[in-house]
Amino acid sequence: MKASKFYFKTRKEVSQDEAAISAVLLTKANFIEKLTSGVYNFLPLGLRVIRKIEQIIREEMEAIGGQEILMALLNPRKNWEQTGRWDTFNALFKVQSKYGSWFALAPTHEEVITPMVKNFIHSYKDLPLYLFHISDKFRDEPRSKSGILRGREFIMKDLYSFHQDEKDLEKYYNRVKKAYQRIFRRCGLNALVVESSGGTFSRFSHEFQVVTPAGEDLFYHCRSCNLYRNKEIIKNTKKCPQCGGPLKELRGSEVGNIFKLKDKYSQSFDLKFRDKNGESKNVMMGCYGIGISRLLGVIVEANHDANGIIWPPEVAPFEYHLMGLLKGAKKEDEAIKRQVESLYEKMLKRGIEVFYDDRENVSSGEKLVEADLLGLPYRIIISEKSLKNHSFELKERKSQKVKMIKLKDFDKIIKGR
Amino acid sequence: MKASKFYFKTRKEVSQDEAAISAVLLTKANFIEKLTSGVYNFLPLGLRVIRKIEQIIREEMEAIGGQEILMALLNPRKNWEQTGRWDTFNALFKVQSKYGSWFALAPTHEEVITPMVKNFIHSYKDLPLYLFHISDKFRDEPRSKSGILRGREFIMKDLYSFHQDEKDLEKYYNRVKKAYQRIFRRCGLNALVVESSGGTFSRFSHEFQVVTPAGEDLFYHCRSCNLYRNKEIIKNTKKCPQCGGPLKELRGSEVGNIFKLKDKYSQSFDLKFRDKNGESKNVMMGCYGIGISRLLGVIVEANHDANGIIWPPEVAPFEYHLMGLLKGAKKEDEAIKRQVESLYEKMLKRGIEVFYDDRENVSSGEKLVEADLLGLPYRIIISEKSLKNHSFELKERKSQKVKMIKLKDFDKIIKGR
Repeated sequence: MKASKFYFKTRKEVSQDEAAISAVLLTKANFIEKLTSGVYNFLPLGLRVIRKIEQIIREEMEAIGGQEILMALLNPRKNWEQTGRWDTFNALFKVQSKYGSWFALAPTHEEVITPMVKNFIHSYKDLPLYLFHISDKFRDEPRSKSGILRGREFIMKDLYSFHQDEKDLEKYYNRVKKAYQRIFRRCGLNALVVESSGGTFSRFSHEFQVVTPAGEDLFYHCRSCNLYRNKEIIKNTKKCPQCGGPLKELRGSEVGNIFKLKDKYSQSFDLKFRDKNGESKNVMMGCYGIGISRLLGVIVEANHDANGIIWPPEVAPFEYHLMGLLKGAKKEDEAIKRQVESLYEKMLKRGIEVFYDDRENVSSGEKLVEADLLGLPYRIIISEKSLKNHSFELKERKSQKVKMIKLKDFDKIIKGR
Repeated sequence: MKASKFYFKTRKEVSQDEAAISAVLLTKANFIEKLTSGVYNFLPLGLRVIRKIEQIIREEMEAIGGQEILMALLNPRKNWEQTGRWDTFNALFKVQSKYGSWFALAPTHEEVITPMVKNFIHSYKDLPLYLFHISDKFRDEPRSKSGILRGREFIMKDLYSFHQDEKDLEKYYNRVKKAYQRIFRRCGLNALVVESSGGTFSRFSHEFQVVTPAGEDLFYHCRSCNLYRNKEIIKNTKKCPQCGGPLKELRGSEVGNIFKLKDKYSQSFDLKFRDKNGESKNVMMGCYGIGISRLLGVIVEANHDANGIIWPPEVAPFEYHLMGLLKGAKKEDEAIKRQVESLYEKMLKRGIEVFYDDRENVSSGEKLVEADLLGLPYRIIISEKSLKNHSFELKERKSQKVKMIKLKDFDKIIKGR
């Protein structure tokens, strides 16, 4: 992609409202733009990252048998009344049609999926069933300063599982736990599995927490027995409830959670199946969420330095940042540009995702600053000096290490797909 | 994909509310499920088609320079007041936060994109610019019986273009017109370009109409000069306004529209640029929409027979439907199943999209009926008879033509990607 043809213009100033470093960096680097408090637009660079996160999640959900669906966001009031959450779900946006009927704007989808699968699940032969969807969600949060870490509108992946009994639910719950760990690792995050409240029916649910100073959650870690537990359900913050060892307080951002619903929603919607003996039983359910737009923010919270973002390779909007270091001397600059163009064409042919900063009206100094801000994993630079040595510079954004590489070795070093 | 592992169960009965044949067939064949009037969930089969339509649109938008973004659905009231449409946009859903502020649920995105690009467009060097997005939209329609042809919540692609002058807008408008014709052709539709009202500023806009009995729009065609014009803007329905020839009335479903906005929204949001002479001028805009979930419905309206859907190849959820015709005799059935499994493995290896109906509890007769309903382009059947001839049956859904093909010729006939 050529920068001159791309919606790309970094910003020096960001609204004072933005307190979270992720929102500041993502706004400056042209990934997102705030529409109003808690509501963001995704610009071409930001959408590329969102799509990569979605693809990682999709692959891992399909690997554990998940089938993708897409559920509606306008939810009929009666579905939410049937579970009692029309009145009790605190952050529910409610909207009335001018023709009378009321809708909830979906903040989660138990009220849609549970009655939906009644057309599908009749016998034990129809179980287990795993359905996931990726879409917008809405929560009427008080004004916050967390940027995209906590939005009123956000992108989320929900997975719902349906089982014959608690044992099968437990088995799948543990498979999802492992799939989630793979997802966060691929996104460049070290997510800790933290015990949290299980609600009415289960002892625990689990949250996936990434340690960051901007995190909204507090949790505790015991080094002796490696317990992680959320502050909400720990009674004594001095001693580990499991082994009595000392506890360390940590601050984190939640990127996912998994929850055994058991038959809470099956009861509300009378979702039953006939077991092997012909007996009618409630279906057991689990639900598993990942906040995708939040993940975009947490990745930046956990991967940046004073100069900008440092994208983990698998979610970077492009893998390479390519540019010529121009001197202002016409003849030399032309030679550099020709060489850069030729590398660009080569990379495109091989299917390498490359962002080529070919802009004419921006100085090389500014381009270098913007490249650090943008934070692509690798940078390839041709300068007058490198060209004299028949070489290019290859810089890794994370380590800041620079290697001089002979142009004739380009094919060996820079591999396509 | 094996049917036994897939969310797949056809239905015999569909709610009497569904009047449109597309909604009836798509519900029976397990592509969509109605949540409430005008609001649908997309099941795995339906979502596969939606994704294919989206991918066709994405490719054609990128081919004419479009860059993809994703804009928010919760729109601040003030943006809609600034254009005057908070009060005048008839189908606007309005929702109030419990913390006081009001939002519109986006039915279209001029109110978001115009102020957004003010951070990007300053000089003529930043123009032209083409941005598109694919997402949900909301319109508070009266209850209708059109199924997914007219929803309260629907999936739409919007493209917005920004130009220095009307001439450049006109040029791009015509490029989009051609791109739209390619999109609809790839979706298996013959979409007619119909002149319709241009609003306050332009003489005409253009709609893309597919002739169907379920269509909500009336338009006229003159065979002498090949004019197509919408009923709304034709005064005399007897005579062609262009050549005086006789007019034929047609009924159609609109699948897209393109519109020159000129500086209507640039004025509202003071979107200006400096031209080559340093003069400040209003940016010229165009907007171009395609209803994606509606398109799913129109494709079915235009491609079905008494037995079910007939998917155009490029948007079919799978290309091949594979099954064995079992007789109930154990030994013979085992031989058939082994052969079908082996073909299935071959097809998977080659990246062919195949739906293998391996269900044990469904009779072959039912499976054949369901295959017609589902409507995949090609069906491969192994029967006792075909196996004796070392052959398989290849049936084209559209023509219903059957060929017997030798198993040894499989590799020649069935090609992967």
